[in-house]
Amino acid sequence: MYRIVRTVARMKLSFPKKFPPSQLNPKRFLGAHLCLKRHVSTYKPENVYLVDEDDTSGSDISNNVNKYTQRTHTCGDLRSDNVGERVVLCGWLEFQRMNKFVVLRDSYGVTQLIISEKDSKTQKLLQSLPLETIIQVKGTVLSRPDGMKNKSQLTGDVEVHVEEFTVLNKSKDNLPFNIREFQKAKEALRMQYRYLDLRFPLMQRNLRVRSEMLMKMRQFLVNYGGFVDVETPTLFKATPGGAQEFLVPTRFPGQFYSLVQSPQQFKQMLMAGAIDRYFQIARCYRDEGARPDRQPEFTQLDIEMSFTNLDGILLLVEELLGYSWPRFLEPLPKKFPRLTFHDAMELYGSDQPDVRFDFKLQNCTEIVKLNNKLVNCDDFGAYCVVFPKEYANLDKPIKEHLSEGSKQFPLVKFVQTKVTTPKEFVSKISKLLTEPVAAKLTGHINLSDDSIVFLAYGNKTQAQKLMGKVRVDYVDYLEKLSVTIRKKGMHLLWVVDMPLFEPSDVPNGLKSAHHLFTAPNAADVHLLESAPLQVRSLSFDLVLNGNEVGGGSVRIHDPNLQEKVFDMLGIDKSSMQHIIDMLSSGCPPHGGIALGLDRLLSKIMGTASIRDVIAFPKTFEGRDPLSGAPSPVSEEDQKLYNIKSIFPVK
Amino acid sequence: MYRIVRTVARMKLSFPKKFPPSQLNPKRFLGAHLCLKRHVSTYKPENVYLVDEDDTSGSDISNNVNKYTQRTHTCGDLRSDNVGERVVLCGWLEFQRMNKFVVLRDSYGVTQLIISEKDSKTQKLLQSLPLETIIQVKGTVLSRPDGMKNKSQLTGDVEVHVEEFTVLNKSKDNLPFNIREFQKAKEALRMQYRYLDLRFPLMQRNLRVRSEMLMKMRQFLVNYGGFVDVETPTLFKATPGGAQEFLVPTRFPGQFYSLVQSPQQFKQMLMAGAIDRYFQIARCYRDEGARPDRQPEFTQLDIEMSFTNLDGILLLVEELLGYSWPRFLEPLPKKFPRLTFHDAMELYGSDQPDVRFDFKLQNCTEIVKLNNKLVNCDDFGAYCVVFPKEYANLDKPIKEHLSEGSKQFPLVKFVQTKVTTPKEFVSKISKLLTEPVAAKLTGHINLSDDSIVFLAYGNKTQAQKLMGKVRVDYVDYLEKLSVTIRKKGMHLLWVVDMPLFEPSDVPNGLKSAHHLFTAPNAADVHLLESAPLQVRSLSFDLVLNGNEVGGGSVRIHDPNLQEKVFDMLGIDKSSMQHIIDMLSSGCPPHGGIALGLDRLLSKIMGTASIRDVIAFPKTFEGRDPLSGAPSPVSEEDQKLYNIKSIFPVK
Repeated sequence: MYRIVRTVARMKLSFPKKFPPSQLNPKRFLGAHLCLKRHVSTYKPENVYLVDEDDTSGSDISNNVNKYTQRTHTCGDLRSDNVGERVVLCGWLEFQRMNKFVVLRDSYGVTQLIISEKDSKTQKLLQSLPLETIIQVKGTVLSRPDGMKNKSQLTGDVEVHVEEFTVLNKSKDNLPFNIREFQKAKEALRMQYRYLDLRFPLMQRNLRVRSEMLMKMRQFLVNYGGFVDVETPTLFKATPGGAQEFLVPTRFPGQFYSLVQSPQQFKQMLMAGAIDRYFQIARCYRDEGARPDRQPEFTQLDIEMSFTNLDGILLLVEELLGYSWPRFLEPLPKKFPRLTFHDAMELYGSDQPDVRFDFKLQNCTEIVKLNNKLVNCDDFGAYCVVFPKEYANLDKPIKEHLSEGSKQFPLVKFVQTKVTTPKEFVSKISKLLTEPVAAKLTGHINLSDDSIVFLAYGNKTQAQKLMGKVRVDYVDYLEKLSVTIRKKGMHLLWVVDMPLFEPSDVPNGLKSAHHLFTAPNAADVHLLESAPLQVRSLSFDLVLNGNEVGGGSVRIHDPNLQEKVFDMLGIDKSSMQHIIDMLSSGCPPHGGIALGLDRLLSKIMGTASIRDVIAFPKTFEGRDPLSGAPSPVSEEDQKLYNIKSIFPVK
Repeated sequence: MYRIVRTVARMKLSFPKKFPPSQLNPKRFLGAHLCLKRHVSTYKPENVYLVDEDDTSGSDISNNVNKYTQRTHTCGDLRSDNVGERVVLCGWLEFQRMNKFVVLRDSYGVTQLIISEKDSKTQKLLQSLPLETIIQVKGTVLSRPDGMKNKSQLTGDVEVHVEEFTVLNKSKDNLPFNIREFQKAKEALRMQYRYLDLRFPLMQRNLRVRSEMLMKMRQFLVNYGGFVDVETPTLFKATPGGAQEFLVPTRFPGQFYSLVQSPQQFKQMLMAGAIDRYFQIARCYRDEGARPDRQPEFTQLDIEMSFTNLDGILLLVEELLGYSWPRFLEPLPKKFPRLTFHDAMELYGSDQPDVRFDFKLQNCTEIVKLNNKLVNCDDFGAYCVVFPKEYANLDKPIKEHLSEGSKQFPLVKFVQTKVTTPKEFVSKISKLLTEPVAAKLTGHINLSDDSIVFLAYGNKTQAQKLMGKVRVDYVDYLEKLSVTIRKKGMHLLWVVDMPLFEPSDVPNGLKSAHHLFTAPNAADVHLLESAPLQVRSLSFDLVLNGNEVGGGSVRIHDPNLQEKVFDMLGIDKSSMQHIIDMLSSGCPPHGGIALGLDRLLSKIMGTASIRDVIAFPKTFEGRDPLSGAPSPVSEEDQKLYNIKSIFPVK
């Protein structure tokens, strides 16, 4: 723990620019400090992430991590109470001074070793040992002399007088990088030598908290909720045109598996199969090419339940996250706020609203509409976002960035301007809106001096989305300049009442907003034929600090309705006959959710990238930096799988 | 639970031939009966596999399985205590009689419903409902009239008087098969409609016990042992000539991932990365073509530990299995017996010895050698297996089967014969061995009248293996004829001191017996150059009732030794540079194990095949019977991954 604290201090000094604000979230580190303090008093500091304090089973991991090993204690264990004990420690040579003072490190902490003045053999040996060499020592715990105690170190009251010093595995000199926070390497090098990178306290913590949180999720689901952990296949049927699916050639010529994008179909079959409460921490695959913060394989907590409804699933997830939420964060509220998709778009211009700050969208459609020359489409909308004086900084870089970003929304007119006075604003935008409209707008949004106004009008959805993007990008910019705008902490909310369909360029003009199996809201089923785009679904997203971390739905259980939806989407029903058959064979009403654990953990640990909560991530391009995969395969090996590489002509 | 018991009774009547003896293991079903009885008294019968009775957390799954759902109780919940309560039940229409008596089933049991005489609407509805229709009822719990109570049913004291009867999802008529044990379908049909098959109590039990056991393993490892659950990638680097590896083509022309056969390399990197106690329930892939009881993807419990040794790993696994072992089986011994590879071959002719019966191999090499005309090789060996009168049945079918099987061992002479008297045996085999040798042999093996003798001599290893196979095949034959030979129960043992290398036809003449990273026994390192085939390794196998269910080793941590082993095996070191680098960067001594969970669960549940403990298994040929995968993929989709199917000319 001491090491994590040290890490924090160093990071603040050395890496203020490399990490986004969330990485330096003071609450998180405050949490670490608090843990440290709490645990100093109980003398089990290293186990803060391992031990469940409510666990009444009597297990004591701090002793058990030494079981089955050749050490008696970890390098984080020893305290004044241990003085006089003979101990065996194993670990990495972290540091040595004068061939006499040694700092030994393991995953649990550091301990100072003292080599006797007379032990010239060990002193000589030490001289020749590179740092990071693996060492075992046997020795006696001594109290450090007064004045030599290190209060900032949990083992700082003691040192181990070395009686036997054994080199278990010598390291080479000149490792690709040192295990020192202040010399931290670039990410590419860290990933190439991930086994070195994992020795850093931050990576240790990320992986250990991940393991702990997943275990608590399991405990909640299995021991409390009676859920059944079922492993479903990852080698599945290829979807025709399934562009994001990895293919797996087989020994059957011309025939392929695909790697599943999610266990969706299997979990629905489990419901029909009376495994009425299913979960799985499932590996899923999606080939999205080179996209930031995506991995070709990722992990989701996949849940499905029979005889439930939307409220049942949401309550389950609220209780599940409440139970498994790390202790170093503020506890979650019992219920997460719900926002309709309509309101999310209307107020935040996003289906992943960041509710950590206000400066919401203001709908000024009716006012702008007064100038009917501007109304160029049926679904016209106009939205403003206003930032007052204390947050007004429309410098060139951000202005250009926003202007550039607005090009993704060609159906709207985008205005961004600094307002000196409301009057000046009216005159400035009168050219666009006409003077009466400009004046009315200015009154409507209650403008004050020296504020910033963003305005978009035209296609309603694009206007909302553009304002949503501007709202977030502008705040990101200000926060990079050390202006604090967002509330601290973890803000979870549900987005509900999402549309069942989205417009698409396929012949039928529709695609699923969530997925093929999502149930429509019963109240809107009558609109399926007449106004499909107005049909709300029973799907929902879980949003954490402005990012979707999960999504689910109540599924269609009526085979006739499912067929109708397939028809509406132009799906070849023969490829989905097994689903229709399954729904026709006695299938309970059911629904579920999938939580993206990589993204959730990344948010929780405040890391810059999901790669920091994954032990062996692939690069941006999908390469394994350790082994170099993907790599060429001989023609002979390809032949075994009845394929031949083709090389596109450039 | 009642259903499982009923199932047993039916199976005994109807399927004596389809299932091997282990399927009908009386102890297992005795276990079920005992559980039933024990739990009748506590009124929580359905939770025997879900509730940990040592769990002091106060959770009560029997209530919680209804949480988040639209039922108040499961169909297994209701007892006399509930009489008078208004309840809501959901489930499958299992049975109905006279449109008045209904049996409703869910995953937890069955409950009888009574439709009121006056409720002609529901009676009429019932008339039209196919079995397996999904129903919700609201009603009041009544005591069944005396004489109508069903003592063999856990809910047999009560019935629910229906007040509201809702069809949630109608089933179609004529399902591919009925959910009735006595009409059980063939496996191919069961797998094609797996969601129907999963409704059978036996499959419910298999999957639920699997989930429960895996959870207990996790609890032991995380909460007691301080292990960290780390997910490692499945998309990895292809091994040159890695014939059993599935390939995954990528968007990089000519470049492929492979699907990992095990997380071996990653877990060793975790050790170098100070995740000193790692585990994962890992999905692994191996393409073994069509082989019985193999699956292209399978699950292993993968464990690795730093600063440990062989004894440490074995103790860990003994305690882990002891903790997670299902309650319906006899508890495991604290320690599992250890057998050296040498003794396993010498006594059982197998590295997976079935110790549930004696009739061990008898080494008669020295006697047969007396006739030096028979000694046709350096590594000559002669072994006998003898079965006494009460197990003597060398009928034509088994004799031919054994004779056929012996052809796999061309370097040995195989003799099988029924012995009338020892004297007659001597005269019979004198032609082969000469009279004095035959007489000496007969005395040595202490032959009695009317026994069966199997004898093999020639190449020692082949003689051992042949006798090992004969020993098991012969006992299998007798047990099929209802002769009980094997001891009941689960017999675990370790095979240790296995050789590091095996002879191979590659240029260097050696291959790894376990894998590339296995450490040699320190006592034998001096033999590496001079007598590599005599070097014992620090690997070990876990054997359960004659089948390997796990294996592991202490790994090489010294980079020089690892390079030497690569050299001896003729491995291209450039493809393994990341391993050498890792070992040279401060890597602790470490070791671990992988347990094959599909096979372990199959043994524990006594199923005929591993497919019965897997929710959605693939067929013998590796096909997904539900979706039909693998399946053709369009040229366009192939092009995206820079491959083209080739079709071998027939």
